[in-house]
Amino acid sequence: MNYPNGIKKENTKQFINYGNRGMNLERDLNTTNQYYRDIDKAYIYKKPTPIKIVNVDYQSRNLAVIKEAYFVEPSTTDYNGIYKGKYIDFEAKETKSKTSFSLDNIHPHQITHLRNIYNHQGIVFLIVRFTNLDLTYLLMVKDFIDFIDNNKRKSIPLDYFKKKGYLIKNKLQPRVDYLEIIDSMEVLYEKE
Amino acid sequence: MNYPNGIKKENTKQFINYGNRGMNLERDLNTTNQYYRDIDKAYIYKKPTPIKIVNVDYQSRNLAVIKEAYFVEPSTTDYNGIYKGKYIDFEAKETKSKTSFSLDNIHPHQITHLRNIYNHQGIVFLIVRFTNLDLTYLLMVKDFIDFIDNNKRKSIPLDYFKKKGYLIKNKLQPRVDYLEIIDSMEVLYEKE
Repeated sequence: MNYPNGIKKENTKQFINYGNRGMNLERDLNTTNQYYRDIDKAYIYKKPTPIKIVNVDYQSRNLAVIKEAYFVEPSTTDYNGIYKGKYIDFEAKETKSKTSFSLDNIHPHQITHLRNIYNHQGIVFLIVRFTNLDLTYLLMVKDFIDFIDNNKRKSIPLDYFKKKGYLIKNKLQPRVDYLEIIDSMEVLYEKE
Repeated sequence: MNYPNGIKKENTKQFINYGNRGMNLERDLNTTNQYYRDIDKAYIYKKPTPIKIVNVDYQSRNLAVIKEAYFVEPSTTDYNGIYKGKYIDFEAKETKSKTSFSLDNIHPHQITHLRNIYNHQGIVFLIVRFTNLDLTYLLMVKDFIDFIDNNKRKSIPLDYFKKKGYLIKNKLQPRVDYLEIIDSMEVLYEKE
């Protein structure tokens, strides 16, 4: 498992997106997670984009270039890490809709993953930004599961986020202070 | 953050390695983690290999091909997840040496990461396999840090693993039962 040559140490940014969708929330979360690390509050990272590499050209001793690769569907969520010794896990999505969040945004494998983490007492939630309303909600997976298990709808209405979710205020730093919401939920610590 | 076209649902395997080094331990850990998931014991995954994507060819509506990308140095460890509600995190390495494990195998960023997770009460360790001896050790990060903070050596001798580490027996299923070792360490649960 040595690291290959051709490594680019100076730039660990991941190529992420396809159209602008999702970029802003992701950028905000990256700076937020960096802030949490800087103040030694939590260590939460975005996972690299999963890809399948088919062809690598070892152009020279010091340069490996991936020449053919494909995106693969993620089986877990994008973000996980540690906060107060506990496992934290979440998925973040943006939607342009002003009325609802389509469940097509979350893959079936990811829903299974969210259920598993919830059942194993992880701190697990969604962060959903309604970009055209400039509203960002945190929805605990318990409430997400409650919805999909009790509704045939293919989308979660904004009203459900207003009722069951937690509005994350826009701040300068950190941009998306979701741990402030988690801190306010003492219920999370009753399971122990 | 919608998933792009060109997704390969049927194959989520990651391209991993460069020469055979590390392949066997990684494969064993993947089947072990799959086994833990199958029996609903723990949800621990290998993170995708971090890469920087430079050029994507959208050949058709349904096929995106990455045409140029580079490996980037990981800032965290390869494996993390949840076990008994707690955050678990480890790095796995193979070495051909029969006498020591070179510290060149672990990047400085990763060492910082391991320290951070340890300080935040994560369950954090290394799994090191001496392939030519067929010995696989689990070394808690506490002992790893003790070593590097108190030695100028650039490698950890096998004897240190024998003294401070835990031998993981080869089993049929799961192949590398590292959680059995963790279960035996009540000390981990004294921090709460």
